[in-house]
Amino acid sequence: MEEKEIYDLIILGGGPAGSSCAIYAKKYKLNTIIISPEIGGTINKAHMVDNYLGFFDITGMDLGMKFSEHLAKFEVPIEYDFARKIEKDGDLFKVLTFSKEFVGKTILFALGLERKKLGIPGEKELLGRGVSYCVTCDAMFFRDKVVAVTGSDDHAASGAVHLAQNSSKVYLINPESELSCKPYWLDEINSNSKIQVLNETNVTEVLGAESVKGIKTTKGDLNDVEGFFIEIGAVPSDTLLSEFNVQKDDKGFIKVDSEQRTTEDGIYAAGDITTNSAKFLQVATAVSEGAICSYTIFKDLKKNARNKN
Amino acid sequence: MEEKEIYDLIILGGGPAGSSCAIYAKKYKLNTIIISPEIGGTINKAHMVDNYLGFFDITGMDLGMKFSEHLAKFEVPIEYDFARKIEKDGDLFKVLTFSKEFVGKTILFALGLERKKLGIPGEKELLGRGVSYCVTCDAMFFRDKVVAVTGSDDHAASGAVHLAQNSSKVYLINPESELSCKPYWLDEINSNSKIQVLNETNVTEVLGAESVKGIKTTKGDLNDVEGFFIEIGAVPSDTLLSEFNVQKDDKGFIKVDSEQRTTEDGIYAAGDITTNSAKFLQVATAVSEGAICSYTIFKDLKKNARNKN
Repeated sequence: MEEKEIYDLIILGGGPAGSSCAIYAKKYKLNTIIISPEIGGTINKAHMVDNYLGFFDITGMDLGMKFSEHLAKFEVPIEYDFARKIEKDGDLFKVLTFSKEFVGKTILFALGLERKKLGIPGEKELLGRGVSYCVTCDAMFFRDKVVAVTGSDDHAASGAVHLAQNSSKVYLINPESELSCKPYWLDEINSNSKIQVLNETNVTEVLGAESVKGIKTTKGDLNDVEGFFIEIGAVPSDTLLSEFNVQKDDKGFIKVDSEQRTTEDGIYAAGDITTNSAKFLQVATAVSEGAICSYTIFKDLKKNARNKN
Repeated sequence: MEEKEIYDLIILGGGPAGSSCAIYAKKYKLNTIIISPEIGGTINKAHMVDNYLGFFDITGMDLGMKFSEHLAKFEVPIEYDFARKIEKDGDLFKVLTFSKEFVGKTILFALGLERKKLGIPGEKELLGRGVSYCVTCDAMFFRDKVVAVTGSDDHAASGAVHLAQNSSKVYLINPESELSCKPYWLDEINSNSKIQVLNETNVTEVLGAESVKGIKTTKGDLNDVEGFFIEIGAVPSDTLLSEFNVQKDDKGFIKVDSEQRTTEDGIYAAGDITTNSAKFLQVATAVSEGAICSYTIFKDLKKNARNKN
């Protein structure tokens, strides 16, 4: 019978965190594979990326391509598929895709987040053409334009304040009866004449063909809106972990220590999926966590190998 | 009398942390200036950089240039000078360079580290041509070659193990009578036939003209060495902070919380100079800390402004 290859590290996810981890893993000579349907992750959906130091004026898709080239240069094997199950097999982990089985000593969870969607007409069609899920990333592209942001919490509130610095007018469309943000954001919003809050209001459609030309809400149409930001939260993609002792916070983000270890031996996490990153979901932070994680895994594997002898 | 410009943020240091912070500060519309004799920092001294995701096959100098271009694109003002003193002026900070004075609401310390030098002939002359201060960065460039690393602690010991994965032979040159590293590194070193430890040995000269062609030690010459790694520690560049309540750890690294605040209000730190980064001194981690810091400063300034009103 053919001996099955045992990987030092199986990386689930090909976004900035997983890709950065793989680059470093190669440096540490860890036998590593990425399992992911694509390289780039969320980045591929970004209109332009100009906040990852050294890159400016690059589309999200082109930056994802750069990551692919980097992985190819380092000869990182990539299985273009979804992981659908993880099983413990003695000290090892077995990852099942739809067609194959991979065995590894450690697993990195770098599956990112699924941004919560409104599920309204035009949302998907105009993504990257006026519709955005990231104020920090895209606010600058709407200088002197009218924008809207929908949501109720700190992300939506601070997003509105941020947008008001560039844009001529900001509608903050809050589905609840009042905002659930920190008091100073509320003060800021109330004293900023550019920001108009619409409480108990839902957006029902994004208008436009080539780009956003307005939004429909339950309180009427806003035809001056050219940029529409959806800041209603995000859900970690972690359904595979249900059988393991991996602790999460109350929002579902995976708890990690400062070196990216989860609470289950052999399972690590990096990027938007972790409690560390949850505060500030950026390429730069994900890349950093992936790098740190690789060094941690290198150290832990060496330590475990010595302890066994 | 002319009203003096008050910056929201004065960034000391133009390396990856300072530059990344400046990019984000512009996104948050903070009135920001960098004070630094150069952009790029330690990166400018790296032979090649291939571990910052998206960049491979680029010289340190060229990557520093990319950072400069990014700052120019974002119109970040840069004062090419050294800060030589910081004074408190009410709620504000006054930063004195050799010729000017800058006033800011907050200060970012991103001055990086000064790698400890041996101070021997050939060290400076052959830096980037066989002499390196970073195993993680440069190990790959010495595949199948003989290398030496000098130092006594975990950095030197793990460095030797890392080097042995690529190189044909590794001299670990330890000035002390025994290594002061973690036991598993010691086990690993003792069981690895590629690694030869020379205790109570000092390197006295690096040989070669265009590239390293050997090293002289107090126990004799090693003429087969083509790569020489100096891992004897690093000292944070923090002399300017002596008058402030900025806590440091026992090695002089600046203590920061997970959002990059120091223990002194209004003073932040990011990059190699911090306790967060101290474990893993990489471009990726510094860029991430700079980005996170900017968001923290944005939030803190908004909060302070509200509290005053």
